[in-house]
Amino acid sequence: MKNIRLTLAYDGTDFHGWQIQPGRATIQGTLVEVLHRITRERVIVHGAGRTDAGVHALGQVAHFHTGSRLTAGEFQRALNALLPAAIRVVQAEEVEPQFHARWQAQGKTYLYRIYRSPVLPPFLHRYVLYYPFPLDEAAMQKAAVEFEGRHDFTAFAAPAGDDEEGGRNPEREVFACRVARLSAGWASLERFGFGLGEELVVVVRGRSFLRHMVRKIVGTLLEVGRGRLQPEDIAGLFAARDRSRSGPTVPPQGLFLASVEYAEPWRAALASKMETAPEQESGQSG
Amino acid sequence: MKNIRLTLAYDGTDFHGWQIQPGRATIQGTLVEVLHRITRERVIVHGAGRTDAGVHALGQVAHFHTGSRLTAGEFQRALNALLPAAIRVVQAEEVEPQFHARWQAQGKTYLYRIYRSPVLPPFLHRYVLYYPFPLDEAAMQKAAVEFEGRHDFTAFAAPAGDDEEGGRNPEREVFACRVARLSAGWASLERFGFGLGEELVVVVRGRSFLRHMVRKIVGTLLEVGRGRLQPEDIAGLFAARDRSRSGPTVPPQGLFLASVEYAEPWRAALASKMETAPEQESGQSG
Repeated sequence: MKNIRLTLAYDGTDFHGWQIQPGRATIQGTLVEVLHRITRERVIVHGAGRTDAGVHALGQVAHFHTGSRLTAGEFQRALNALLPAAIRVVQAEEVEPQFHARWQAQGKTYLYRIYRSPVLPPFLHRYVLYYPFPLDEAAMQKAAVEFEGRHDFTAFAAPAGDDEEGGRNPEREVFACRVARLSAGWASLERFGFGLGEELVVVVRGRSFLRHMVRKIVGTLLEVGRGRLQPEDIAGLFAARDRSRSGPTVPPQGLFLASVEYAEPWRAALASKMETAPEQESGQSG
Repeated sequence: MKNIRLTLAYDGTDFHGWQIQPGRATIQGTLVEVLHRITRERVIVHGAGRTDAGVHALGQVAHFHTGSRLTAGEFQRALNALLPAAIRVVQAEEVEPQFHARWQAQGKTYLYRIYRSPVLPPFLHRYVLYYPFPLDEAAMQKAAVEFEGRHDFTAFAAPAGDDEEGGRNPEREVFACRVARLSAGWASLERFGFGLGEELVVVVRGRSFLRHMVRKIVGTLLEVGRGRLQPEDIAGLFAARDRSRSGPTVPPQGLFLASVEYAEPWRAALASKMETAPEQESGQSG
């Protein structure tokens, strides 16, 4: 059996999220279906993060075990040939049998895009929150830092028992939470002088997240930007553990699972194994 | 009666082109419908170029006459509030009564995007032709220049009688035809290190175009890139006037009407009129 690790990008607009559900188009379900067509096996695909309906990915990581003789590169090409264009395998590698995309993830980075200019380009409405109204960005940046560190995130999540890990512990560690401003080109067309616009991007990096946690953090930062909350209020929201006092859950279309980090000893281990194995078998090296 | 000039951007994916057609979603039809809701008038909207089904715009220009008391800025806000997100009014201005978006256009620039990297980002498949196979770009650049100047474009167009102007003269002047390479960011996410890819963009600028002319030029340039035609063959294709010997019509999703140029004396004329008028009426200046 091989263990294949996939790095995936997807446009979540037309999917009911990552997790397989009967009768609904999901990312995991689509992958399982296409892998069955390729291998004739009932493959189980594990993803690092269970993204919600409408949420996108630039670097989701998943793995599956297979008895197929296809190489990782062949799996990438076959998957990209058969998957809908909204799901792409950016990278595929054979990894150690014990690698697990979810349990071994050391960190995940999410981005949330907020479009600030008055006219939203028609090519971006699936990928940003359109918010052209005044915002105090300095206050938002100050508030963002308050989310860093280990906290009980009850006030900033969907009701308990429903989290990404399936567990009930509401404590999470956020490594970094920042608000960045960038000039957004219309998909590289800025060279022709078209449609430069301003975007805010909220970047949140942590080990794992409660359900809706990033979207509640962003919703709370927008309340700070509007002056309805102060950066100094965040500590009180944490302490009160009351989700009705924090900001709303912003819509999914601005959210991207950007990348997943691993300690990656498996990579070094496998590389050394692959370097030695062909020599022993073929004797053609040197 | 006011004459309002609109600059429009649209995602043509879900529309049957610019031109109004009964029972089908078109850009012109959608504009007429929404303008009727705003003004209760039967407004006629004239566009500079009749883009085909699936073709996008960054800077289409249109105009309409109206008895409404709304200002151009109010029209922009009302249209953007009521139009689908796939159509945006980038700019709206009141112009001289004699301004006509189509008849006074001095030049139009079209872009055609060809995505070259092996994995097509899921956010781009509606906006590019995916062509990751080898291409001789130097030969394409050499061939592109052959399309510049005044020619009989019969070999590079849909059958006659069906052109953008509704006329039958197959002569057109191309001011510039160039192949440019650019590194395409995934809609500004390159700052985070994601998914840089390579794109070729064919830029064609001319006074007006026959139907499918840009897409046939791009199809012919791809044949040159693949080595099936040589840059030296283009002159012979023009002379033969045989559309079966030129390249295929490439699909619409890579094509953008980028901008429309006007001599714009109307702009200067109106500006001077607007500078003097308020003084006479209100007497509040100075």
